[in-house]
Amino acid sequence: MATFQHPLSALTADEILLCSKLIRANFESPQSLRFKGISLQEPSKEDVSLFELSGVVPARRAWINYYIAGTRFFYESIANLGERGVESNVMVPAGLHGPTDDNEILQVEKLTLADPGVQEEIKKLELPPSAVVVCDPWIWGADAADEDERKYQCYMYMRAARNSGHLDSNHYAHPLSFSPVFDTVTMRVTRIEHVPTGGDFETKPTGPARITEPNEYIPELNDLRIDLKPLVITQPQGASFIHEGDVLKWQKWSFRLTFNYREGMVLHQVSYDGRPLFYRISLSDMSVPYGDPRPPVHKKQAFDLGDTGAGIMANNLKLGCDCLGAIAYVDGLIADEEGRPLKKQNAVCIHEQDAGLLWKHTNYRTQRAALVRKRELVVQSIITVSNYEYILAFIFDQAGELAYEVRATGILSTQPIDPGVSVPWGTVVHDGVLAAYHQHILSLRIDPEMDGEHRNSLVYEETAPMPLSPETNPHGNGYVSRRQVVKTSGGYDLNSKQNRVYMIESSSKVNPVNGQKTAYKIHVPAFQPLLAQDDSFHYKRADFADHSIYVTRFRENELFAGGQYTNQNKQTTGVRKWSARKDSVQDEDIVVWVQFGLQHVPRCEDFPVMPAEIIKVALKPVNFFTRNPAVDVPPSSQESNQSTLIRARRMQAELSHARVGAEAVMSWTRF
Amino acid sequence: MATFQHPLSALTADEILLCSKLIRANFESPQSLRFKGISLQEPSKEDVSLFELSGVVPARRAWINYYIAGTRFFYESIANLGERGVESNVMVPAGLHGPTDDNEILQVEKLTLADPGVQEEIKKLELPPSAVVVCDPWIWGADAADEDERKYQCYMYMRAARNSGHLDSNHYAHPLSFSPVFDTVTMRVTRIEHVPTGGDFETKPTGPARITEPNEYIPELNDLRIDLKPLVITQPQGASFIHEGDVLKWQKWSFRLTFNYREGMVLHQVSYDGRPLFYRISLSDMSVPYGDPRPPVHKKQAFDLGDTGAGIMANNLKLGCDCLGAIAYVDGLIADEEGRPLKKQNAVCIHEQDAGLLWKHTNYRTQRAALVRKRELVVQSIITVSNYEYILAFIFDQAGELAYEVRATGILSTQPIDPGVSVPWGTVVHDGVLAAYHQHILSLRIDPEMDGEHRNSLVYEETAPMPLSPETNPHGNGYVSRRQVVKTSGGYDLNSKQNRVYMIESSSKVNPVNGQKTAYKIHVPAFQPLLAQDDSFHYKRADFADHSIYVTRFRENELFAGGQYTNQNKQTTGVRKWSARKDSVQDEDIVVWVQFGLQHVPRCEDFPVMPAEIIKVALKPVNFFTRNPAVDVPPSSQESNQSTLIRARRMQAELSHARVGAEAVMSWTRF
Repeated sequence: MATFQHPLSALTADEILLCSKLIRANFESPQSLRFKGISLQEPSKEDVSLFELSGVVPARRAWINYYIAGTRFFYESIANLGERGVESNVMVPAGLHGPTDDNEILQVEKLTLADPGVQEEIKKLELPPSAVVVCDPWIWGADAADEDERKYQCYMYMRAARNSGHLDSNHYAHPLSFSPVFDTVTMRVTRIEHVPTGGDFETKPTGPARITEPNEYIPELNDLRIDLKPLVITQPQGASFIHEGDVLKWQKWSFRLTFNYREGMVLHQVSYDGRPLFYRISLSDMSVPYGDPRPPVHKKQAFDLGDTGAGIMANNLKLGCDCLGAIAYVDGLIADEEGRPLKKQNAVCIHEQDAGLLWKHTNYRTQRAALVRKRELVVQSIITVSNYEYILAFIFDQAGELAYEVRATGILSTQPIDPGVSVPWGTVVHDGVLAAYHQHILSLRIDPEMDGEHRNSLVYEETAPMPLSPETNPHGNGYVSRRQVVKTSGGYDLNSKQNRVYMIESSSKVNPVNGQKTAYKIHVPAFQPLLAQDDSFHYKRADFADHSIYVTRFRENELFAGGQYTNQNKQTTGVRKWSARKDSVQDEDIVVWVQFGLQHVPRCEDFPVMPAEIIKVALKPVNFFTRNPAVDVPPSSQESNQSTLIRARRMQAELSHARVGAEAVMSWTRF
Repeated sequence: MATFQHPLSALTADEILLCSKLIRANFESPQSLRFKGISLQEPSKEDVSLFELSGVVPARRAWINYYIAGTRFFYESIANLGERGVESNVMVPAGLHGPTDDNEILQVEKLTLADPGVQEEIKKLELPPSAVVVCDPWIWGADAADEDERKYQCYMYMRAARNSGHLDSNHYAHPLSFSPVFDTVTMRVTRIEHVPTGGDFETKPTGPARITEPNEYIPELNDLRIDLKPLVITQPQGASFIHEGDVLKWQKWSFRLTFNYREGMVLHQVSYDGRPLFYRISLSDMSVPYGDPRPPVHKKQAFDLGDTGAGIMANNLKLGCDCLGAIAYVDGLIADEEGRPLKKQNAVCIHEQDAGLLWKHTNYRTQRAALVRKRELVVQSIITVSNYEYILAFIFDQAGELAYEVRATGILSTQPIDPGVSVPWGTVVHDGVLAAYHQHILSLRIDPEMDGEHRNSLVYEETAPMPLSPETNPHGNGYVSRRQVVKTSGGYDLNSKQNRVYMIESSSKVNPVNGQKTAYKIHVPAFQPLLAQDDSFHYKRADFADHSIYVTRFRENELFAGGQYTNQNKQTTGVRKWSARKDSVQDEDIVVWVQFGLQHVPRCEDFPVMPAEIIKVALKPVNFFTRNPAVDVPPSSQESNQSTLIRARRMQAELSHARVGAEAVMSWTRF
C-alpha cells in the first residue's frame, strides 16, 4: 500500500479503497451504498506539531459520509486506517441531508426527462420534431419546517429551435415554465410545478412554446472578432517554483497544497521566509440566495461547496487555456459514489504571472529609476456548478501578500418571463428570459499561526479625527489611529467611514523597529449582507452571510461556515452558532472567517455568458517584517524581459518638428 | 508651422513657441517671465461637434500661465493662435499662486543648501566630513488666512553615513529636525523652523546628529534574491492596436489620447463599436493631507496635479521595465519655464496585457469547455512627485469596461523621531524615522456622452429586502432594486449596506431587450473621506475629498476638482463650490467626478520603498449592449498561447499507484 507523505496529505487511492471496504464490512449483510464523501480526518494541531518536532506519526483517520442507497439512511463514519477499523459510525439526524454528486445529477436529469408526466408536459409545448428539451436539476433548498425528503427541483429548458442539433447550444436562453419535483429515495418525479411567467405569483398551465431567437456562447455559433494578435508568455529558464510532494516553495513562501472533494484546494502551514503565518486556509463555504419571492423559485439558494463540493466540480484544466506560461498541474483524488478513488485530473494549476510594477522610485535629482515588477504565484482551480463557474485562486506575491481571488463567470440561472413583463427582482436579459437577482456570498476560513504562535488575536484599527484644540490640534488637520482587540467570538463588520481594518496579531512577537505586535491585515471589500428576512430559511441556512468577519475559538471539526450539512438544512448549524458560544478570543487559538461577495443584479451584458466579476481578499503584513520584504527583488530589465518597441503609425509632422525646434530643451535644463 | 491634427490635439512645438512669443510681445518693455503652464484651450463641445459634422475648424486657442520673474505678479492669458494675438491677460487675484516646476525645486534645493543659516545648522550636526545633507523642498500648503507669499517648507535629510558617496542612497531614512522656509520672490531662506521629534509639540535646537543604519532601496545596496526566473511576453504578430495621430483603436474601442502639463494623459471621444461613451476623461486632481497636527508639518497637503502637474512629472518610460510585451510610447509636449517646448520623452506607454480568464463555461453534460482570456489595453503614465510615485493607467477590456488604475508607490515622506518615542498619528518605520499617517484622495473627471447623447443623468440603484408579506414575500427571501435619479448637482456617497451603485444613463436610448435606458455604471471602492475638521484649511482646499461622487452641470473651464489654483489656496474654489449652484442635473450636460483613495497608515513594510497599493475605478456597461460584448472574442487555445507544461518534482509513488489502482474510474462513470 502506497504510504501517505505527511499527516496532512490527502488520502491515497488505496486509503480511499480501504475506507469503502471497511464501511461495507461494517454491515452484516451486503448493502448497496452511495458514498457522498471520503476524505482525510485531519489529525489535531497538537499531533501535527508533535510530528514536526519529533517525527511521531499520528493515527491516520478518514471521514466517510454515505447513504444506504434508495433510503434516507445517511451515515457519518470515522475509520482508523492504520488499525483498519471503523471507530465510529453515526446516523445523521433527520433534517440533515448529504450533498448531490455529479452522477446523481445526470441520473436525475435522465429519469426526469423520461418521466411520463414530464413527457406529457413536453407534448403540450407543441415543439417541432427536432426540438430538444433539457433538464437542470437544482438543489432543493428549504421550503417547510416539516419536510424531510431529499429532493430536487428541476428547471426545464429547450435548445434554440435553430440549433437543436448542437449539444452545446445555450438552453438557458429558452427556459420553460413547468418544473418537476424529484424525490431521491424513490428516484421518481413526484409532482410537476410551474414557474410564474408574469409579473405576479400566478402560474399558467403549459401551452404551446413560443420559438425565440438563439443566444449562443460557443465560438462556432458566433462571428468572432479577427483583430486580436497572439500574446505569448514563456519562461525560457523554467518556472521559479519547486513542487515536491504536497509542498510548494516559491520566492520565500512555503506551504502544503492538498485537495479534497468539498473544499477543493486547501493550504496548510503557510510560511514566509521560514516564519509561519497560517496553519490552514481554504474556501469554506458559499451561499447564493435568489431574490424572486415566488414559489417554486423562492427556494433557490445554492451552497456550492456544502451541497455539491468544490473538489467534485473541479474542471480538468487545459494547457494554454486556463492559464499561460510555464504551468504545473496537480491532480486531485476524491471518491466516487461507489467509494472508489476517482482522479480529478489537472484539478489545480500552478503558474507564475507578471502583475505590473511592484514598486518604483526615481530620484528626481539624478533621474535614476529603481523599479521591480510584481511576479505572482497563482494556485488555481475552476469549478462548474451546473450553469455557473467560479475561478478560484490563491495568489502569492513577493512582498509577503497572500490573496484569494474569485472570478464569477458562467451562465445565469434563468427562468421564463412573458413578453412585455418586467419584475423588480430580476432583469430580462433575452426575449422571454428572466435572470433573477441573487447574491454570491463566500467565506474564506483562516486558521492563523501568526509568527509561529498558536495563540493569536483579532484586532481592528480605525483612523479618526482629533478634536480641534489649541493645544493638541490647533489647525484641525490631526488624526490618529486606534486599535481595538476583539475579545469575544462573534460576527463583526467593516466600517469604511472609520477605515476599519481587521488584523490578526501574534500574542507576543513584536517588531524590533517600532515595538508593534507582528500581524497580518485583512483587506476585504465591503459586500451587501444577505437581504433575506431574519426568520427566513435563507437567513437561517446562510450562517455566515450577515457579517464580513466572524471569529471563533478553534474547535475540531468546525471547518465549514454554513455547517457540515448544508443541503436542505433549515437551521443555524455553522459559524453563527459556534460564535454564539461567546468564547474569549483574545490570545487564543482562533479561527477567522472572512466573508465577501457580490450583489448580482444581472445586465444584458451578463448573457449568454458572463464576463468575470473579480473579487479579492488580500492578507498583507503589518509590521510583520522590519522593511519591505520585496526590496531584494531583482530590478526589471529589458535584458531579461525582452520587450518589443512598436513604432506607432503616427503622423510625425508635429513631433519631428518639435525635435528640431526644441533640440536645445530636450533634456531638463538644470539650474 | 506644423499644423495640429484635430481641434482637440495638444499644442505643437511651434504653437508653444508662439504662445510665449505672443505673451512677451504683450509687454511694453522686456520682462523676465517664468512660465508655469502653456496648454490647449479646448474648443467648446459645440465647436467640436460642428467640426466633426461639417469640418468647420474652430479657432485655435491656448491657455497660458506665467509669473513676472522675481515678483508675485501672476497672469492667466488666452492667446488666439490663428490670429496670433492675446485675447485676454488677467492678473490672478491675491491668495492664489502658480504651481512649482521641476527646475524651481532644484533651484530652491541648491539655494537652501547654500544658505549661511542652513550651513550653520548643518555644522551643529557635527557630521563626519564625508556626510551629505539633502533638501526636499515641499509645497507650502496653507497656514494663516493673511499670508500671501509663495513659499516652500524645506525638509532636510542626510544620506546614510556609510553610503554618503552614493548619489541614490535613501536619505529619507535619515531625516533631520531643522526646516528652512524659502520665499520664491526673494529666492531666499527667510527663517529656519524645527520639526518636533518627541511625542508632543515641543521642538529642540539642532544638536549633534545620531548616526543610524542605512535603509536602502537601490539594488546594488541590497542582497538580491536569486531564484526568480525570467518571464518573457512576446507578440509575434505585433500588437493588436492601431495608433494614428492622437487616435487609438483597439478591439472596437476608439479614443483620442492627448497629454498636457497638468493632467498628463487625457482621453477624448471614447467610444465602443462606434457608440460614443465619454467626451472627456482624465485624472482631475489629487490631495494628500497628512495627520500630524504639529507645526510645521501640519501644513503638509500635496495637490500633485494642481501644485506641480502630472505632465511635468511624467517619467521617461523604459522598454522592458515599466511594461512588458509589444510597447508603443508617446512623447508629451509641454512648455518649460522659459516658454519653450519641452519634450517629455516616452511619457505614456501603450501595450496589451493578459489578465486571466474573461469568461468560461463548461457544459457538464458534454464536458465541453468554452473559454476566452481577458486581453487588456493599458495606457500608462508614471509620475514622480519628489519622494512619491503614482503609476496611472487607463485599462480597456474586451467586454466594454474602461478602468482607471492607480498604483501608489515610491518612498514615504519621513520626519525625525527620538528613539523610544511613539505618536498616534504616525508609524516608526526605521530607527529615528517617523512616517506620518496621510490620505491619498484622487478625483477622476468624467464628462459623458452616453450612447451619443450630450444630455445624461446620474442615477443610483440600490437593492433592498421586500417586507415579509403572505401575498408578496411569503418566504422572506424577496428583494428588489430601486433606481433614483440624482436631480441636483452636489456631493453624493456610497452605501455598501444598500449596495448603492451609481450609473450614467443616456436620456432616451433604450436597450431593445428590456427597455432599460442604456448606461454605464461606476465601480468605485469606498474610501475614508478627508479626516481634517471642516473649518481647517485642509478641508477647504480639498474641495472634492468629502464625497465619493460629485455631479455638476457642465461649464467651460471647470476641469480641476480642487480648482484652477491649488498651490497655497485657502478657499473652496473647485467642485464643492460649483456643485453648490444646485443646478438641475437630470437629462443635462453633466460632469461626474469620482473620488477614490487610500488611508495610508504606514507599515514597516512600506519602507524604504513601498509595495504598490492598487486602487481601481471601473466603468462598466449596464444594459448598454444587448448581450455580452466579449462573446465574440476568439477562444483561448494552446495553439496560439504556446504554454509549457512543467512536470512537478513530485514524489510520484502515491499518484502512480492511484493511476494503476483506479484505472477503471479515471473518467467519470456515466449513468
